[in-house]
Amino acid sequence: MAAGCRAASRLSRLSRDFRVTIIERGPFISFSSCGLPLYAAGEIDSVDDLCETAYGVPRDEKYFRDVKGVEIRLNTEVDAILADRNEVKCRNIDKGETFVLPYDSLLIATGSEAVRPGFHYPSSTRVSPFHSPSDAANFRKIAEKGSVRKAVVIGGGFVGCEMIEALTSLWGIETVLVEKEERLLSGSLDPELSLYLESCIKSERVHLSLSTGVEGIETDSEGLPVVSLEDGQRIAADYVFYCLGVRPNTQLARKSSVVTGRSGGILVDEQMRTSVPNIWAAGDCAEVENFVTKAQESFSFGSLSNRMGRVAADSIAGRKASFNGAAGAVSLKLFSNIVCAAGLTEKRARQFGYETGSVIGCWSDRPEYHPDAKVIVGKLVYEKPGLRLLGLQLIGEGEVTRYIDVFSELLSHNKTIADLSEAEHAYTPAHSSPISPLNYLGFMADSQETDGVANVSPLQVPAFRGIFVDVREPAEVGSVPFPEKSVHIPLSDLKSRVNELDAHRPVMFICEKGPRSYEATRVLLKSGHREASYLGGGNLLYNRIKKFSEQLETHS
Amino acid sequence: MAAGCRAASRLSRLSRDFRVTIIERGPFISFSSCGLPLYAAGEIDSVDDLCETAYGVPRDEKYFRDVKGVEIRLNTEVDAILADRNEVKCRNIDKGETFVLPYDSLLIATGSEAVRPGFHYPSSTRVSPFHSPSDAANFRKIAEKGSVRKAVVIGGGFVGCEMIEALTSLWGIETVLVEKEERLLSGSLDPELSLYLESCIKSERVHLSLSTGVEGIETDSEGLPVVSLEDGQRIAADYVFYCLGVRPNTQLARKSSVVTGRSGGILVDEQMRTSVPNIWAAGDCAEVENFVTKAQESFSFGSLSNRMGRVAADSIAGRKASFNGAAGAVSLKLFSNIVCAAGLTEKRARQFGYETGSVIGCWSDRPEYHPDAKVIVGKLVYEKPGLRLLGLQLIGEGEVTRYIDVFSELLSHNKTIADLSEAEHAYTPAHSSPISPLNYLGFMADSQETDGVANVSPLQVPAFRGIFVDVREPAEVGSVPFPEKSVHIPLSDLKSRVNELDAHRPVMFICEKGPRSYEATRVLLKSGHREASYLGGGNLLYNRIKKFSEQLETHS
Repeated sequence: MAAGCRAASRLSRLSRDFRVTIIERGPFISFSSCGLPLYAAGEIDSVDDLCETAYGVPRDEKYFRDVKGVEIRLNTEVDAILADRNEVKCRNIDKGETFVLPYDSLLIATGSEAVRPGFHYPSSTRVSPFHSPSDAANFRKIAEKGSVRKAVVIGGGFVGCEMIEALTSLWGIETVLVEKEERLLSGSLDPELSLYLESCIKSERVHLSLSTGVEGIETDSEGLPVVSLEDGQRIAADYVFYCLGVRPNTQLARKSSVVTGRSGGILVDEQMRTSVPNIWAAGDCAEVENFVTKAQESFSFGSLSNRMGRVAADSIAGRKASFNGAAGAVSLKLFSNIVCAAGLTEKRARQFGYETGSVIGCWSDRPEYHPDAKVIVGKLVYEKPGLRLLGLQLIGEGEVTRYIDVFSELLSHNKTIADLSEAEHAYTPAHSSPISPLNYLGFMADSQETDGVANVSPLQVPAFRGIFVDVREPAEVGSVPFPEKSVHIPLSDLKSRVNELDAHRPVMFICEKGPRSYEATRVLLKSGHREASYLGGGNLLYNRIKKFSEQLETHS
Repeated sequence: MAAGCRAASRLSRLSRDFRVTIIERGPFISFSSCGLPLYAAGEIDSVDDLCETAYGVPRDEKYFRDVKGVEIRLNTEVDAILADRNEVKCRNIDKGETFVLPYDSLLIATGSEAVRPGFHYPSSTRVSPFHSPSDAANFRKIAEKGSVRKAVVIGGGFVGCEMIEALTSLWGIETVLVEKEERLLSGSLDPELSLYLESCIKSERVHLSLSTGVEGIETDSEGLPVVSLEDGQRIAADYVFYCLGVRPNTQLARKSSVVTGRSGGILVDEQMRTSVPNIWAAGDCAEVENFVTKAQESFSFGSLSNRMGRVAADSIAGRKASFNGAAGAVSLKLFSNIVCAAGLTEKRARQFGYETGSVIGCWSDRPEYHPDAKVIVGKLVYEKPGLRLLGLQLIGEGEVTRYIDVFSELLSHNKTIADLSEAEHAYTPAHSSPISPLNYLGFMADSQETDGVANVSPLQVPAFRGIFVDVREPAEVGSVPFPEKSVHIPLSDLKSRVNELDAHRPVMFICEKGPRSYEATRVLLKSGHREASYLGGGNLLYNRIKKFSEQLETHS
């Protein structure tokens, strides 16, 4: 796939003295697995499109031989690496023939594999992971017959989320997403943002069943799957996908005494060398440094695999190159939103032992006067001592992903919230505000740490024992009220009415998105009030989350 | 505006001991001047929208007093700064009254002013710069009457380009853009990209008159303007905008012995302090370090002004903060494209004495199989010794701007092409490819410098004395032929047909966007051929540029 094909092609390009062979267990090479949901969704006509070059030529054996100068052996499994003899023992899966190939340098790029369920499930064409082209093709064959009206997706990670869109958008399949964690995408988003994302899933055909594990899957009398949940529910469906994540595929490596790390991936140095001489590893099967935690971690991102493959090739060819690690920048399109993140969630940062601070914000992606302005919601996580950046999560309908790229660049150099405040961006009203969300998050974090202007998570509202003060304009309060009991003092009146607020009770300010309540907090703190804070993301975020949670409760 | 209002508001927030006054010569404060083209174009109903907060409250004197705690004096000009007495001498423009205000700290945030033409022009409501709200409002009043059918825009910089869209899109005004340089946006784009951009201007109502200076503007018998060009042409129009750029407005500063720099802006240190004690400067009127050249330069960007204002406030308040400089990240929406750049063009880099290298590329912004994939064209400029990054220019219909933000971050730390190759990005087929344009540009530059895989600018094609080899598939060659005499050898056949190419003649490879011809160059160099190169941006870019140039020639 990405790492193997990339390394092979580059090696062949670098010198004509290299003879490069790719050994692939399956029937395909070099397809875009990230495009499989698009194929399943019917947005791409053929799985072949994912195996083609930009100019419509299939990336098959002939292509690799003629264009790349690389020999391909498909349907061929490596049974063993005989490292002391610099040989691999291969077996052609169709014919069962075995043979031995010698090597000077060996690259292990065995990728990742879908995690299999711990619960029992039937062997059925209608119960499947979503990992390989055949998983996608099998579903699509059945879906095209119109015989899938209801589906269950088990797992609310990235692939599971992509599947709910793939199933509902074109096919109109009623879909239940079952996730044992309390929230979607809990590995990449903290609950405030997961909740917001969940509330954005507008399709009426999607049902979320959260905080519920799967007990098992049976088949009914017609051979259709029935999913039993741990809470006793049983869901009959025409199709079940289990999307339980992936893990490094390192069976072969481990059999061959190649050392793997804590996350289960192959340990490599910055030149992608493994513990065994003349053996390299790259891609999903390898562990690389997480720029934030400095721990080794296996990522499963095509972009990183590509770059690792390039570095492995350079290293094998004796050229200077290094892969220094990753910030884990990740992105997902889910219905009308783009969700993206890099670094650690606050939850995960605390698991790593960091003393964290965080701020939550909400902005327009353009000046509000622009007719195309869209909402962005974000959360920044940082380390309190030293104010080093730890993670960022953004959700928006507009351009948000590349902000994550900027943030990743900052993470890769251990930058602080001051650097975030100073990040330069190209501004034009067509796609940004004069102050970028990154700058705002930096400013908010700085104010919180330097001046005690506390940004409060919407999830902390229920526990708050003080006075909520809504500083919006009367018309705004009337149209979308803040759902909790609150005092209304428009920001413009605050200075003259500060005395109305009991100086002995904590005050939390509310506005639409955050900026005004931030200012109000400053005003109150300046007046000598000691316990003032503001609601991060404002009423916009809180209202959405609250309404959605109530719907969830009513629903269940 | 941005710097002044930002600094004033922040100062007032930081301590209640500060009494902050803004003195403004004009009738407005704190409006979004970057939004003026949208108002002129009719996309925004009222110029008031540009002076409003996100929640619809006008940012007027009352707002600043009540909400920000800042006193505003409109229509008031500062005639002199009496620095030795810490006073400013003010004059109310309407009433003519003069008065003196004392200060502890003074911030000069006088912004920039439109450059006035060197040629003669009439005093007419139909001949105007495009700089202030009244410029925009005056045009709109006349345009709404339907009495502007033809307009001339003088100046092909950012504002001039925005104006041609504003004039043609909604109002349908036939517009001639007159630019004395050979190309549009020549300060931010090298000619390859300017030409591409020009070819993208699809509106039939836009006529470009390039390489032509204006001799003068007269009025005809009905009082309508007639523009005389240096080449003898005379263009009668209903409206003329001159958009000749801006320069720092430093009259007051200079009168007060505040030192200005080479670019005409006020010299400041990293805390925005001027040469005179107790006087700061921020925004368009100040000079800051250009991260690339290390020279002082005045930028005219709302985003930078905002951040400068914040730093000035912090500095005045005795807090730690610094503004370290700018990469000059800039962006423009022009019809369906976004144009953005940071750092230096190759032309400008050479003027600064850098020994430059550059590569030009063309990509899809997403995998080609994605139904929404759009073209991006880019040029990277770097310094040959040390391979330091100098500049990047990108044009695309999709998400391109934030790539410039990432690049700006790299520029701000003197990064090299190796760092560009390693830049991490969040990948999902909905908005990016597994290898980002930034990575590709880094790879291409690295190959050019390390292995001599030369990337040739489309503008160098006419001077090339060798064999063009088109390595595309037959169908592609048939549908959009490379316009020069060329040999056709599909990439897949190249290895077996290398001998057909005369080893003593230089070869330039062509493909659709670049990647295949890059590979072909590698193949030929490996085979021992010494003079091989590939066409940057491929036939896609070349064909567009060539066709467009021919149209230009036919037209003129």
